[in-house]
Amino acid sequence: MADPMWNLSPDRFFDPDPSQRRVARELYDSIAGLPLICPHGHVDPRLFADPDYDLGSPTDMLIIPDHYVFRMLYSQGIPLEALGIPRRDGGPVEQDHRKIWQTFADNFYLFRGTPTGVWLAAEFVEVFGIEEKLTSHTAQTIYDQIEVKLATPEFRPRALFERFNIEVLTTTDGATDTLEHHRAIQDSEWQGDIRPTFRPDAVVNIDSPGWLAEIDKLSDISGLAVNSYISFIVALENRRAFFKAMGATATDHAAVSAYTAELSETEAEAIFQRALGGNASEEDAHRFTAHMIMEMARMSIEDGLTMQFHVGSFRSHNDFIRVRFGVDKGADIPLQSEFTRNLHALLNKYGNDPRLTLILFCLDEDTYSRELAPLAGHYPAMRLGPPWWFFDSIYGMIRYRDRVHETAGLYNTVGFNDDTRAYPSIPTRHDVWRRVECNWLAGMVVRGLIDMEDAADMARDSAYRLVKQAYRFGSE
Amino acid sequence: MADPMWNLSPDRFFDPDPSQRRVARELYDSIAGLPLICPHGHVDPRLFADPDYDLGSPTDMLIIPDHYVFRMLYSQGIPLEALGIPRRDGGPVEQDHRKIWQTFADNFYLFRGTPTGVWLAAEFVEVFGIEEKLTSHTAQTIYDQIEVKLATPEFRPRALFERFNIEVLTTTDGATDTLEHHRAIQDSEWQGDIRPTFRPDAVVNIDSPGWLAEIDKLSDISGLAVNSYISFIVALENRRAFFKAMGATATDHAAVSAYTAELSETEAEAIFQRALGGNASEEDAHRFTAHMIMEMARMSIEDGLTMQFHVGSFRSHNDFIRVRFGVDKGADIPLQSEFTRNLHALLNKYGNDPRLTLILFCLDEDTYSRELAPLAGHYPAMRLGPPWWFFDSIYGMIRYRDRVHETAGLYNTVGFNDDTRAYPSIPTRHDVWRRVECNWLAGMVVRGLIDMEDAADMARDSAYRLVKQAYRFGSE
Amino acid sequence: MADPMWNLSPDRFFDPDPSQRRVARELYDSIAGLPLICPHGHVDPRLFADPDYDLGSPTDMLIIPDHYVFRMLYSQGIPLEALGIPRRDGGPVEQDHRKIWQTFADNFYLFRGTPTGVWLAAEFVEVFGIEEKLTSHTAQTIYDQIEVKLATPEFRPRALFERFNIEVLTTTDGATDTLEHHRAIQDSEWQGDIRPTFRPDAVVNIDSPGWLAEIDKLSDISGLAVNSYISFIVALENRRAFFKAMGATATDHAAVSAYTAELSETEAEAIFQRALGGNASEEDAHRFTAHMIMEMARMSIEDGLTMQFHVGSFRSHNDFIRVRFGVDKGADIPLQSEFTRNLHALLNKYGNDPRLTLILFCLDEDTYSRELAPLAGHYPAMRLGPPWWFFDSIYGMIRYRDRVHETAGLYNTVGFNDDTRAYPSIPTRHDVWRRVECNWLAGMVVRGLIDMEDAADMARDSAYRLVKQAYRFGSE
Repeated sequence: MADPMWNLSPDRFFDPDPSQRRVARELYDSIAGLPLICPHGHVDPRLFADPDYDLGSPTDMLIIPDHYVFRMLYSQGIPLEALGIPRRDGGPVEQDHRKIWQTFADNFYLFRGTPTGVWLAAEFVEVFGIEEKLTSHTAQTIYDQIEVKLATPEFRPRALFERFNIEVLTTTDGATDTLEHHRAIQDSEWQGDIRPTFRPDAVVNIDSPGWLAEIDKLSDISGLAVNSYISFIVALENRRAFFKAMGATATDHAAVSAYTAELSETEAEAIFQRALGGNASEEDAHRFTAHMIMEMARMSIEDGLTMQFHVGSFRSHNDFIRVRFGVDKGADIPLQSEFTRNLHALLNKYGNDPRLTLILFCLDEDTYSRELAPLAGHYPAMRLGPPWWFFDSIYGMIRYRDRVHETAGLYNTVGFNDDTRAYPSIPTRHDVWRRVECNWLAGMVVRGLIDMEDAADMARDSAYRLVKQAYRFGSE
Repeated sequence: MADPMWNLSPDRFFDPDPSQRRVARELYDSIAGLPLICPHGHVDPRLFADPDYDLGSPTDMLIIPDHYVFRMLYSQGIPLEALGIPRRDGGPVEQDHRKIWQTFADNFYLFRGTPTGVWLAAEFVEVFGIEEKLTSHTAQTIYDQIEVKLATPEFRPRALFERFNIEVLTTTDGATDTLEHHRAIQDSEWQGDIRPTFRPDAVVNIDSPGWLAEIDKLSDISGLAVNSYISFIVALENRRAFFKAMGATATDHAAVSAYTAELSETEAEAIFQRALGGNASEEDAHRFTAHMIMEMARMSIEDGLTMQFHVGSFRSHNDFIRVRFGVDKGADIPLQSEFTRNLHALLNKYGNDPRLTLILFCLDEDTYSRELAPLAGHYPAMRLGPPWWFFDSIYGMIRYRDRVHETAGLYNTVGFNDDTRAYPSIPTRHDVWRRVECNWLAGMVVRGLIDMEDAADMARDSAYRLVKQAYRFGSE
Repeated sequence: MADPMWNLSPDRFFDPDPSQRRVARELYDSIAGLPLICPHGHVDPRLFADPDYDLGSPTDMLIIPDHYVFRMLYSQGIPLEALGIPRRDGGPVEQDHRKIWQTFADNFYLFRGTPTGVWLAAEFVEVFGIEEKLTSHTAQTIYDQIEVKLATPEFRPRALFERFNIEVLTTTDGATDTLEHHRAIQDSEWQGDIRPTFRPDAVVNIDSPGWLAEIDKLSDISGLAVNSYISFIVALENRRAFFKAMGATATDHAAVSAYTAELSETEAEAIFQRALGGNASEEDAHRFTAHMIMEMARMSIEDGLTMQFHVGSFRSHNDFIRVRFGVDKGADIPLQSEFTRNLHALLNKYGNDPRLTLILFCLDEDTYSRELAPLAGHYPAMRLGPPWWFFDSIYGMIRYRDRVHETAGLYNTVGFNDDTRAYPSIPTRHDVWRRVECNWLAGMVVRGLIDMEDAADMARDSAYRLVKQAYRFGSE
C-alpha cells in the first residue's frame, strides 16, 4: 500500500462556504506575498552571527528545542529522556537521533488538528519538500530527506531568512546581554535586519533565581555600581540606551499578574536594599515588580521604546521536570488574570500619553472582551497584542477577533508575532495568521458588516502595516 | 473616481450558507415590521416634552453625546477637545462642528466592522437617506445633507417616534426627579407612550458623590424628613408610588458587584446615621448597597415594578478624563463578576416568589453559561437581560444565545433593549437584534434542533412578546 | 388541522454547509453502530437486579426523577408540587400522573432548542415510536401510547439494555454501599455488564450532612472500628478492594473547589478526631477534603482504579427547595473554578506517574483553554472528561472541543459519558455526542486541518476507544 501523502489544501483554514471561501482567497492572494515582520520571538541571534551556522540533525532542529512538541509526547507518558532532552545533572538521555525521530513519528497522531501538527505539516512540505505524511513507516526516509537538505547551503539560517522573505526579526535579550551576536551581524556584510529586544525581568524581579548575580552583571556591564535603587534605575536607563543604539525598538516584560502600583522612592530604595541583603519578602517582590512596570512605562515615554507586557503564566508548574530538566520544558500553565484594577495605576499615570505604546499579551481569553478590549478601546497608549502561546492557534485567533474586534476595532491591535524559537516554523506561523485573518474578514464581508474595499485594507493592515507601526520599524 | 456607496445588504448579519440564509430571511420578514418596545434607555424625555425640539447639528446629534463614538477616536490619540466634548472647567474645546465632523470622517475607518460602524451606516442610509459612504472626501456634503433634513418637521423627535414605529419608550430617571417632562408629555395631545423608570442609585449608594445633597432633595420632593433609615425607606416607597402613578413599570439599579445581604434594621439604621454624619466607611457602603438591593426586591414584590439590576462596571477608570470632562465619557471598564454566591441571599429570600421579576445584566460574559443561565433556569423570579453595552453587538448577541440558551431556554430571557441615548440609532439597534436572532434561530432550524413552526414563534417572542411581558406593558 | 409531527432529521446537528455535512455524515455512518460505553452515570442498579423491573408510568419515567425537566418548569413558576415531586414532610403533591403529563405538555415549548428538548424528541421517536409532537392537544394520546409500550416485556430495563447496544454501564455507589444489586446481577444468568463506581464523598467530606452516621456504617461494613484517621484510611482501602472485586474500575469524587494539599498524618488525625467529636471547623473540612483527594490519588496508583474528580457545583442553592424537597432538585449552580494553583500539590506529587489516570470534570468552561487543556497537555496522569451537566449539550460540546483541542489534542480527553439517571435517554445522549463530534471533525476536514484518514480514526477514538482505555474496560 502506498504511503499517505500530506494534503496541504490551498484553501486551508478557510470556511467551507463557497462565498466566504472565495472572498477569503481573494484577500489572502492580495497579501500572502508581503514580507514577514517578526517583532517578538526567541530565535538565537547566533544563527545569524555565524554565516555557516548548522541547524543540526532533524531531531536537533524539530524536537529537542521545541517544548510545544515534547510536552505533548510527555503528556502521553513518554519520558523526556527518551526524547533526548538534556538532564541538568548530566544523567543519561537518548542519544540516537534516529530513534528519537522514530518515537516522534510513532506518536505523531497526537498532534492531529493541533497548531503544532499544522505547522509541522507545512514545514515538511513547504520548507523541506517532503511529500509523504510522517508515520511509523515513513519516519526514517523522511529523516534522510531532511538530513540531506540541512547539509546544503540553502539551509543555512541566513539563506532561509531571505527565502522566508523576512523584513525584520527581533530577538529577546536580557538586560545584561552583551549583544555580541547582534554586533557581529551588524559588522558583517550580511544585510538581514536582526534587532535585539530589551527584556530586563531577571534584574527587575527581585525574586527571580540568581537575582544578585544578575545585579553584579548589571554593575559590570553598565560600569555603574548598582548598590541602590537610584543607581539601579540609572543602570537600566543606560542599558536601554545601549539596546536602542543596537537597533532595539521595543522592550518586553513578564509577570505573573498585571498588578501595577507606584512606590515612593524611599520605599523602592528600602525594598531594593532588603533584596540586596537577601531579606526581601514575597510581598516586597510583588510590589517592586508592580512599581518597576510603571518605571518602564516612564522610560518608554522618554526613549520611545515600545513596551510589551506578557501576563499570566505560572512558570515551571511541575517541580520534577524543573529539577531534572530545567525551565521552559512545557510545564508553564496559565493563570486567571485581571487587568481592570491591576492596570489602573499604570494607565492613570501614563495611559493618556500618546508617546507610549503599551502592548498587552495574556493567557486568559476571558479578559479579551471583558477587560482588554475596553481598555485598548479607550486609552491612547494601550494596544492589544495577538493571541499568545496556547492561543496562537486557528481557533484561538478566531476567538480573539470575535471577542476583541467589536469593542477595540482593528486599529487598537498590532498584527501578529510568531514568538518562536523554532526558526523554520516562522513562515507557516505567519501564513496561518494571514489565512485565518483573511477568512475572518471574509466572514464579515459575506455577512454585510464590511465591504470588500474595507476588507482589503484591513487584510494588509493586519498582515503588515499595524505591526510596523506599533513596533516603530519605520512607516510603510 | 466616484465616491464609494454604502452597501446595506438586505441579508446583512445572516450566515452565508444559502439554506440558513433562506430560513433567516423568512423569519426576519415575519417580524421585521413589529413595533419597537424600548423598556430601558437613556433618551432625554425633553425630546418629547417639547413638540418643536431641535436635534441640533449633525455633530450635536451623532458625535458629542455618544461616548461609543468618541472613545474610539480618543483611543487613537484624538483629544476629546478636538471633538467638541465640553470641559468641566469651561476650557476651550473645538466649536466648529464642521471641523469636528471632518475629523470624525477622516477616522471613520476605525469603526469598520464594529457595532457603532454598523449602526451609523444604517442611520445614514435609512434615517437620513445618504447614499455615499462617509469618507474624508464626502464628509462636508454629507454634513450638508443631514443638516437640511434635521431642519424639517419630519425630524422632530415626535415625528421620528412615529416613523420609528415605537410602541413604548422608557427613560431612566433619578429617585428625586420631578418627572416634569413626563408630566408635560402626558398633558399634551401627543399620544406617544413615554414612561419613566425609577433609578435610585444616587440615594441608595451612600458612597456616591453628592449623596447628602441627594438625600436633601429626597426629603424635599417626598415631603418627608429623611433623617433615619426608616424615613428613608418610607420616602423610597413614596417615590416608587409616584413613579408608578406616572406610568413606570420598572426600576433599575446598578452596582459594581452583585453582592446581596440582609442587614438587621438596627445595623441599617447605624450605617445610615454614619452616612448622614459623613462617617460611613467603604465597607458600610458595600453592605448598605447589598441590603438595599434586597429591600428593592421586597418593594417590587409589593408594588409590582419589574426590577432591573446592572452589575460590573468600573465607572470612570480614567481619572484625567473624569476630572476634565466628567462621567460617562467612554472610560467605564468592565470587571469580573460573580453571581452564584453574591445573589444567594436575595434569591433565597425572594427568588421563589413569582410576583418578582428580577432582570440581570452583566458585563462578564463568562458568567452567562456558568452562573446566570443556571440561576435563571431555576429561580422563578429571575430573568436574564439581553447582552449589555460592549456586548450589544452582533458577535456579542451570538455568544449570549450560544451560552445561555441551552440551560435557560428562550423563556427565561426578556428580548432586547437598546439602552441608548442616541435616539436616531434606536431602529437600527432593534433591527440588528432582530436579524441576529432570526439568523440564530435559522441556525437551529438547519441543524435540526427546532422546526420552522417553533422558530417562527420564537422569533416573535424574541422581538416582541417577551419584553412586553417582562416589563408588564400589557399582554399582546 | 393535523397535529404537527416530530421532525428528526437524519442530518441533525450537522452544519448546513453541504461539504461539511457530507463529511460529517460519512464519519457518523462509520461509528453510529458502535456499542455504547457508559463509564459514569446514576442509573439505579435495581433496574437490572430485578428482571421484571417496571419503569412505571410515563410521568414516573420521564418527569418525576429528572431534575433537568422539572427545574425548567419550576423556573417559569410551576410549583414542584404540581409536578408530583415528593415533599420531604409528606405534604400533598399532585398524584394524577395524567394531569402532571398535561402540564408538562402544555409547557413543552420551554424546551425548544435545549438539550432536554432534543433528547426527549429522540426518545419519543426512537425509543417509543411516537410520531406526533408533544403538545397540549396530543398529550393524552401520547401518554396512552407510552403507557402501552411500558407494559410490554420489550421495555424491561434488561431488554432495553440489549436494544440500546450497551457494552458496559457503571453506576455510582457510596463507600458504604453493600452493592447487593450488583451482586444480584452478577449472580443472575443475565450477561449485561453492570459495574459499580466507588464514590466516597459522604465519608470523606467531614462537613457532609450525616457524616457521623456514615462513619458508623463504614465501621459496620468494613468490620473495622473507624475511630482514627489511620483506621479510616484502612477502611477506605478495604472498601476500594471490595468495589474492585465487584468489578469497579473507577472511583469518583466531588468537591466545591479543586483545592488539594497534603496534611501531615498528625494533622489529619487531629482533624479527624475533631470531626468525630463534632468540633471540626469549615476550614478543617476544606483542608481534610484537599488532603483526601491526594490520598485517593495515592490509592489509585496502588490499586489501579481510574480516578474521577468533579469540581465546582454549589449544591442546593435554593434553601426553600432543599428543605421542602431535598437535594438534587435542579437547584445546583456552578461556581467559578481554579485548577492551576489548586491542583499543584496533587499533580506535583502524583501527576508524573503514568499508573494514575485522573479525569477532571468542571462547570467553568473558562478553565478549559486556560487551565485544564494546558494541564492535561502536560501531565501524564491527567485527562479531561467530557463537558459536564449544563455543558452536556450541542453548543457545550462544540465549545469544549474548540477550546480544548488545540492545546490538549484528542488523546488527553476520554470520550463521552452520559452521567444520567434517565435510563431511556442513554442512546440519544450518546448519539448527540457522536453526531456533534463527527460534525466537529468534518469541520476540521473541510478547513484542511486534518485529512479524512485522521478524521475516521478520531471519530472511532472519540466514540469508543478512548473511553474504554481511560476507564480500563479492556483494550479493543
